[in-house]
Amino acid sequence: MFAMDMRQERISLLGLGSMGRALAGALIGAGHEVTVWNRTPGKAGELVARGAREVSSVEEAVQAGGLVVVCLLDDASVREALAPVVRGLTGRDLVNLTSGSVQQARELAGWLGGRGVRFLGGGIMAVPSTVGTEGAFILYSGARDLFDRVAPVLSPIGRPQWAGEDPGFAALYDMAALSGMYGMSAGADHAVTMLHAEGGDLETFKRAVLGPWMEQMLPIIVAGADPSATVPEEYNPGMQAVGLETILAASGEAGVPAELSGHLRASLWRMRRAVDAG
Amino acid sequence: MFAMDMRQERISLLGLGSMGRALAGALIGAGHEVTVWNRTPGKAGELVARGAREVSSVEEAVQAGGLVVVCLLDDASVREALAPVVRGLTGRDLVNLTSGSVQQARELAGWLGGRGVRFLGGGIMAVPSTVGTEGAFILYSGARDLFDRVAPVLSPIGRPQWAGEDPGFAALYDMAALSGMYGMSAGADHAVTMLHAEGGDLETFKRAVLGPWMEQMLPIIVAGADPSATVPEEYNPGMQAVGLETILAASGEAGVPAELSGHLRASLWRMRRAVDAG
Repeated sequence: MFAMDMRQERISLLGLGSMGRALAGALIGAGHEVTVWNRTPGKAGELVARGAREVSSVEEAVQAGGLVVVCLLDDASVREALAPVVRGLTGRDLVNLTSGSVQQARELAGWLGGRGVRFLGGGIMAVPSTVGTEGAFILYSGARDLFDRVAPVLSPIGRPQWAGEDPGFAALYDMAALSGMYGMSAGADHAVTMLHAEGGDLETFKRAVLGPWMEQMLPIIVAGADPSATVPEEYNPGMQAVGLETILAASGEAGVPAELSGHLRASLWRMRRAVDAG
Repeated sequence: MFAMDMRQERISLLGLGSMGRALAGALIGAGHEVTVWNRTPGKAGELVARGAREVSSVEEAVQAGGLVVVCLLDDASVREALAPVVRGLTGRDLVNLTSGSVQQARELAGWLGGRGVRFLGGGIMAVPSTVGTEGAFILYSGARDLFDRVAPVLSPIGRPQWAGEDPGFAALYDMAALSGMYGMSAGADHAVTMLHAEGGDLETFKRAVLGPWMEQMLPIIVAGADPSATVPEEYNPGMQAVGLETILAASGEAGVPAELSGHLRASLWRMRRAVDAG
């Protein structure tokens, strides 16, 4: 975004957990007029010092009149916060960045849509410390015209990425991508636990081996990920199954807790299925 | 490597599976004098056309007189191939790039060392299609003087990376890094399976969401991987546990096979442990 494109907008943000505070900080930094509310007070000090207005009720936050952005603990918190004010939201725009399921996002869209609220479901593809940085992006799905209007307004928190008219699709993409990340995390945790148990040098391993290897393989793995759960012949699933059994056995011998090897058992299951399928 | 540093060396390569053929191709391409052997013949056609010499026995391969590089199916294949020629290897240099366990590498080093063979264990951090490309690297451990001598000779297959005097450490680093990769792979497979089950657009998801998200998180995850299996307070393990339960429930509802969710159960186990530890 160029500065000349940025108009100052009124935004009311509900929720000041670590993610909510990061969002508010990025929006204030971009020059927007930000009103903040949190269920328990005392989270807004730094934001108020930077120019945010803190209010003590959701009603006051809604009365500020601008775009309502919600980032609470879970879907139940969103329902609880919005229920008393939902009549006052008719004709207004609301973006929900709270983590939740596909079904919850669809039901929330139905509930708010039935009261004339324009709705976007969202998924924040960042952690609090990367909000507003180059790699961060935000998934949005639901009312396309609302996306077109708010995408530039909300771009300071992360690059806006359209996920479709289905209001649940931002949650679907978010949840599936998180599942990918948890695999990466389970693999890395298992790797360092195994290395530590055998007396390897952790910092050398992470810097010179694990990082460069995972970086090298990431694009290949993402490109090859296939929901049919088949494994191409050229990947030699039989040989990979043998290799996975070796790693599992070595992990056990090194004393790595079996619970940490779930990603290896998942991969072994796929390889065996591929072998059985011929 | 600069071309002026490259001396032509005699290298005998045992094993012409897809990885062995990729190694031979890279070594021939760098101008080395390569002799190849495979248990079952008929794999060397293209390599011979490019200048390799094919022999029909391990004895002949060893008699070629240069560095012996082994890349076979498993440790048992290495033992079987080398047993008849081990007396003729006294005073020679051997690098084993066959996948195997830490213990197997240590025992092989002991067996060969007892016969006066200088030994390096190795781990190829590449797939056949990336051998010799920029990201590829090869782990070596064992005789440091042998590493110093062969590192430039073998650099055409991938950047040489020292892993320590313990001959099993190349295998340890290799196996641990593979475990990390299988986590990434299990996560990506689960992600696309979930997305497909819900009717999402796979190509958009992989290109615009899964790839960029995993790229963004990879350095954070590798840097934060910790064998103590504790999760820092700032990562909010309680909230992550709730999120993981949501993804697991949503996967089940979408009909994703439970076997594919092993990485999520591993991550959930870690988060719950962290919560219990306070």
